[in-house]
Amino acid sequence: MGRWEPDARGRLERAALDLFSERGYDETIVADIAERAGLTKRTFFRYFPDKREVLFSGEKVLEELFTEGVRAAPASAAPLDAVAAGLENLAPLFEERRELVIQRQRIVVSNPELQERTLIKMASLTRAVAEALHRRGVGEPTASLTAEAGVSVFRVAFARWVDPANRPPLSDLMRESLEELRAVAAAR
Amino acid sequence: MGRWEPDARGRLERAALDLFSERGYDETIVADIAERAGLTKRTFFRYFPDKREVLFSGEKVLEELFTEGVRAAPASAAPLDAVAAGLENLAPLFEERRELVIQRQRIVVSNPELQERTLIKMASLTRAVAEALHRRGVGEPTASLTAEAGVSVFRVAFARWVDPANRPPLSDLMRESLEELRAVAAAR
Repeated sequence: MGRWEPDARGRLERAALDLFSERGYDETIVADIAERAGLTKRTFFRYFPDKREVLFSGEKVLEELFTEGVRAAPASAAPLDAVAAGLENLAPLFEERRELVIQRQRIVVSNPELQERTLIKMASLTRAVAEALHRRGVGEPTASLTAEAGVSVFRVAFARWVDPANRPPLSDLMRESLEELRAVAAAR
Repeated sequence: MGRWEPDARGRLERAALDLFSERGYDETIVADIAERAGLTKRTFFRYFPDKREVLFSGEKVLEELFTEGVRAAPASAAPLDAVAAGLENLAPLFEERRELVIQRQRIVVSNPELQERTLIKMASLTRAVAEALHRRGVGEPTASLTAEAGVSVFRVAFARWVDPANRPPLSDLMRESLEELRAVAAAR
């Protein structure tokens, strides 16, 4: 087996998701994942520090797409509209991988440790979005409140999107949730 | 030493906060806390399951005050106004204990494990507030979005309140943050 393996990362990811689904997250070890992918443990550790990060390596991409969308919004955009642009920018990542994302989500919700890891990643995402708003000249507490609102909209829309009863694209669900948040804030 | 100790819980709490501040959270053990409070380890464990819960036992009270305020809001109140009533209801708890709360906050922000614990408690608080809104007849995703907005307002106002540069009461800071969120949501 040569050092270079075509799509090693993708094969490891699919093998891990399948094993976590079949046997359970706690019952799966790195050696199992490597074997299922037809790769060595050494190759696994070239891509991931541990089995948990197979589930969370996409969070960095999510953060980059979200903050890039905020950054690229027109200078005239209001803070929440810049956040809406960030949300639009990350939707394709999810649509392209819908089945894998849903499989991953089922694994995460069944394990308290993984749910806690998700909370930590969401808090880190919120800080990154607030920082992207600061770079647009948005002050505090507006930036933090807007970032929290944006991540809330993402979280609520995502929960609806992974529900098999819902078929609309994630971008539609995020736009609806954002409008719902605007309506909630306007009602007195 | 008799079984009954006047204000044992309060003495243990102050002893723990002082030791965590002086020596560090990781460097303090339950025996140290009991000794500083002039009580036994056995007495400690009648009040708290471990040293971490000394810092988090107030979260249950916070949740009860928040949800009680939501519940008691007039039936005609819009969802976010019910949440605002919940926020008003918890402010006195913080004002009465300002010095202890600030001391506690310094300990929590200096320790990643305690920060993670805070995220978990905030997620649990969000679910409890959403559930209180469901009981008012608010559907989804409105209830979740409103609960997340309320907890965001609390978090942002609390961070300003513990900053020594800020002297306004927490209830004023929460009202300001809520108005700021309404302004953010209205701007296009």
